[in-house]
Amino acid sequence: MIHKIAHIGVAVKNIEEVEKFYSEILKMEIHDREQLKEIKATFIPVGDTAIELLQSTNPEGVISKFIEKKGEGVHHIAYQVDNIEKALEDLKAKGVQLIDEKPRRGAHNSRVAFINPKGTYGVLIELVEPEKNH
Amino acid sequence: MIHKIAHIGVAVKNIEEVEKFYSEILKMEIHDREQLKEIKATFIPVGDTAIELLQSTNPEGVISKFIEKKGEGVHHIAYQVDNIEKALEDLKAKGVQLIDEKPRRGAHNSRVAFINPKGTYGVLIELVEPEKNH
Repeated sequence: MIHKIAHIGVAVKNIEEVEKFYSEILKMEIHDREQLKEIKATFIPVGDTAIELLQSTNPEGVISKFIEKKGEGVHHIAYQVDNIEKALEDLKAKGVQLIDEKPRRGAHNSRVAFINPKGTYGVLIELVEPEKNH
Repeated sequence: MIHKIAHIGVAVKNIEEVEKFYSEILKMEIHDREQLKEIKATFIPVGDTAIELLQSTNPEGVISKFIEKKGEGVHHIAYQVDNIEKALEDLKAKGVQLIDEKPRRGAHNSRVAFINPKGTYGVLIELVEPEKNH
């Protein structure tokens, strides 16, 4: 079902400042930036995965609330799947509680869904089906 | 300096229970288990990286204290480097505060060092130089 980690989502307060840490101190390369609904995202590839920096543009948004509660840091781990509907059905059949019963649009035109972290031992898990390259 | 994520460390209370979640629900494969100083570790490869489950065998240990404060979840991100002494020197020269000025022994006979999370925007970062394959 899972081939690799699509990205690791990291909640930050000031995305430009944190980009500098990754690019200037860790010498990692910024790949692209995307404005999602209420979220600024910056992708920094590393090996076959990526760090996804996330800054909320809404003080009431999920990323803001996460930082308020837990501070800046890792927000979620996104696993890449081939067929997100099938993966969600499979998890549901095994009794896993989902946040998103149906996939929704994620960064890079992917389709994504989150699993309820209550059943995943504290790690917020996202499933990502990348945009098909036709 | 950094080629890939060596692993993502996840703090858990009951490692056998969490192993079941990864192997039975997510269908990921347990690669190996290792008893480190005060820590049980389980490696679960995914793509070119791995999830490293961590359970403290000491109620006063760092993983226990992390869980007390923040709950179960992602504890650190470990980046693979070729030469850990050089990486630490380089970071120090850039003013980055280190937890370990010198590498110490990690899992799989690697040498590891942690960066002070105060300078890394909430993510505890570990550097890992894998055991050389002579």
